[in-house]
Amino acid sequence: MRLAPIQRHATAASSSAGASSQATSTTTRVASRFQSLPPSASSRQVEQSSRGTLTAEEVLGFRDEFPILDQSVYGDKPLVYLDNAATSQKPRRVLRAMEEYYEEYNSNVHRGVHALSAKATDRYEQARDKVAAFVGAGSSRDVVFTRNASEAINLVAYTWGLDNLGEGDEVVLTVAEHHSNIVPWQMLSQRNKFDVKFAGLDPKTQSLDLDGLRNLITPKTKLVSFGHVSNVLGSVNPVEEIVAAARQGAHPDCKILLDACQSVPHMPTSFPDLGVDFAVCSGHKMCAPTGIGFLWGKPEVLEAMPPFMGGGEMIQDVYQTHSTFAKPPGKFEAGTPAICEAIGLGEACDYLAEIGMGRVEEFEHEIGAYMYRELVEKIEGIEIYGPSPDQAPRAALAAFNVEGLHATDVSMILDQYGIAVRSGHHCTQPLHQYLGINASARASLYLYNTKEEVDQFVSKLSETIEFFRGG
Amino acid sequence: MRLAPIQRHATAASSSAGASSQATSTTTRVASRFQSLPPSASSRQVEQSSRGTLTAEEVLGFRDEFPILDQSVYGDKPLVYLDNAATSQKPRRVLRAMEEYYEEYNSNVHRGVHALSAKATDRYEQARDKVAAFVGAGSSRDVVFTRNASEAINLVAYTWGLDNLGEGDEVVLTVAEHHSNIVPWQMLSQRNKFDVKFAGLDPKTQSLDLDGLRNLITPKTKLVSFGHVSNVLGSVNPVEEIVAAARQGAHPDCKILLDACQSVPHMPTSFPDLGVDFAVCSGHKMCAPTGIGFLWGKPEVLEAMPPFMGGGEMIQDVYQTHSTFAKPPGKFEAGTPAICEAIGLGEACDYLAEIGMGRVEEFEHEIGAYMYRELVEKIEGIEIYGPSPDQAPRAALAAFNVEGLHATDVSMILDQYGIAVRSGHHCTQPLHQYLGINASARASLYLYNTKEEVDQFVSKLSETIEFFRGG
Repeated sequence: MRLAPIQRHATAASSSAGASSQATSTTTRVASRFQSLPPSASSRQVEQSSRGTLTAEEVLGFRDEFPILDQSVYGDKPLVYLDNAATSQKPRRVLRAMEEYYEEYNSNVHRGVHALSAKATDRYEQARDKVAAFVGAGSSRDVVFTRNASEAINLVAYTWGLDNLGEGDEVVLTVAEHHSNIVPWQMLSQRNKFDVKFAGLDPKTQSLDLDGLRNLITPKTKLVSFGHVSNVLGSVNPVEEIVAAARQGAHPDCKILLDACQSVPHMPTSFPDLGVDFAVCSGHKMCAPTGIGFLWGKPEVLEAMPPFMGGGEMIQDVYQTHSTFAKPPGKFEAGTPAICEAIGLGEACDYLAEIGMGRVEEFEHEIGAYMYRELVEKIEGIEIYGPSPDQAPRAALAAFNVEGLHATDVSMILDQYGIAVRSGHHCTQPLHQYLGINASARASLYLYNTKEEVDQFVSKLSETIEFFRGG
Repeated sequence: MRLAPIQRHATAASSSAGASSQATSTTTRVASRFQSLPPSASSRQVEQSSRGTLTAEEVLGFRDEFPILDQSVYGDKPLVYLDNAATSQKPRRVLRAMEEYYEEYNSNVHRGVHALSAKATDRYEQARDKVAAFVGAGSSRDVVFTRNASEAINLVAYTWGLDNLGEGDEVVLTVAEHHSNIVPWQMLSQRNKFDVKFAGLDPKTQSLDLDGLRNLITPKTKLVSFGHVSNVLGSVNPVEEIVAAARQGAHPDCKILLDACQSVPHMPTSFPDLGVDFAVCSGHKMCAPTGIGFLWGKPEVLEAMPPFMGGGEMIQDVYQTHSTFAKPPGKFEAGTPAICEAIGLGEACDYLAEIGMGRVEEFEHEIGAYMYRELVEKIEGIEIYGPSPDQAPRAALAAFNVEGLHATDVSMILDQYGIAVRSGHHCTQPLHQYLGINASARASLYLYNTKEEVDQFVSKLSETIEFFRGG
């Protein structure tokens, strides 16, 4: 397979060598722990490769880096892993970076002067630099490590939110949000008595109803929080337009939070350029280990926030009567951090940056559209949620139902063929309620998936349907 | 070296085979995710090996399992790692279990029906069973995975604490607490206007002033929170006596929280037997990876608590207007968990249980007392904090200062000899203020440390002091 190139990102100037030297620049541990990144270092520029469209050979080459993909399940069924929106697989170099940590320099960070501790501290903070560069952050100080994206959103809710959202205020979400971007605000609204409102979908495209969202934004709006890419609809929200609407119509202190879990792993992203106040990501969806995610925040916003959890690392001085706190990001990282996991995430950022996120996006756009077309053409009675690739850009995933079949049955039978898709509500029950369904099956792709795997999936889905309809 | 056996734990009955079969019992994923453990399965019994005292050969054998220990730093200085109270090293089998996860069955848990997801869910919940068995929990449901012990304490503060501690209430801590068991209560006391009081030390033994603590406990006391073993004093707090004092003198709703970070890695521990309401542990101090810790709670207490963070995994159903929540432990685990890290922690529990925690305790008691005696005998002008081994049982660590030398200088010079000790306040600034010092150096041992390493440490400390005194 060599999918035809599209030119949306082909004009980026900087080379992958630039990305590499950026990503591996070191931090001086004592004098200046945090790296200030030049404006030109935004991920949009540094991660763009000039090597053109990904070829089928390159994609097959990627697969060598992911040993898990080379296996059979249920005896002789080659694994076809199409559950990447739930979690991605990890390349060998990420696993090697983690092994190296445990086998060579595992130690607690920031508080030790011995050799292992100094190295662990350096590598932990270098990982922060790599993550910062990957999302275009102006400084590594703007990146706070968390366990996952859910914790990052809860961190904002428990710090900025607890102090700033109250009676009479309104929070605007979209109906397509992941539970992690709904439940924290619901829980806080019960404590602090503000209202939570949901923007709906455009019935024609099943993507965000932007006018509807604009109508919800009023001077009472103190927070607009939304996903960059829907994990069910595949739709890509127009961040700049939503930000413009919020800056124009909302309360002057309104904050904007972007859930970037389904965008950062799949496309070049620069948070400062998008104009939001906060953005959250999960590492495990972007080739990094479990147990790590991060919050990016505008420096002045992070600086003004009270701490979240109390403990070691986040303090300056502790007395019996009171404590003083560290500056961000330390202020928000209580206790021994997920050191090895952060190092793994840094390595994953290097891996993706070296491939070039523009090339990843282009490849996924093509293979995602191919999967969409194949499903529509070959599966009778299928309904795929979200916009069609002709209507709007969409992620390389398809959440669907087939007339007369339950999504869980579909995925259970596909599993017997070795094809891993997910079924359920995908942590988006309000969206499923809005669409009038209980569940959907979802196939979601990543940079290592091939056209042959898509063909296998569509073919076995067809057999599955015949099995049920014939039965 | 073969240290003389002491018989404190030599009478335990069950064999290591029993521990193994307990630890590897499987969970039926759909029908009954959580294992109820029989009362006889408490860690005190199952983890006790009948193989007698650890021999020098066994300890050397352990070292083969820890590849990191077999290295030189600064060219030709063999590493002597004595910073185990900050973090322990990880055995190969823990690293292998984690590699196996990423190379064979990495997948998101609890929400997928495909083969990888089913296996990941099984292994994640089996890890919870292993942790539960290791600390004598009555059910795996009583174990909540967190990033670290700090998060576990903050979880209790933000859920039970936020709703139950208010004006007129008192929280009783000890002056020796780690910052993670001080700052969360200080932060909450500023919001909810209760008082925080600190028990001091017995001046003769530099261990907890138990009578002083008893005097602080009144019907206003709603929480008593303390460490099992001090990470600086090495002192072992009399948990049963503190619990008795709290149950007798405190408010009837008073809760008791045990910080077990420095005990569970080093001695047999059964939380239900200790009578506390909550206990917290960090995985990375007990041969497990970074990024994982846990909260144990009495089931009825966990059940009554509101959720902590909102998001996926912790919900039952989400609507635009409200949500319903899962039962513990899921209720407290928002978002994709640290799956691989939990599996690593389960493997670490198996590793320690198979050695036998009674044997680990016995070995550490001996080598810790040896280090203490050697330091006192050979280092002029040394002050070691906490009780002497003749006065009370103490952990295998020594936090100290040497007359006329700064702790940081001591550890920096020792580092040049390859000896990794930590200096600073060890996240116990109030304790250091109480002792009238700014910092201390600390050497802390674990099951893989040898008498020869202690000798090397004492000898090089002696040279360091000569270097400074001569200079």
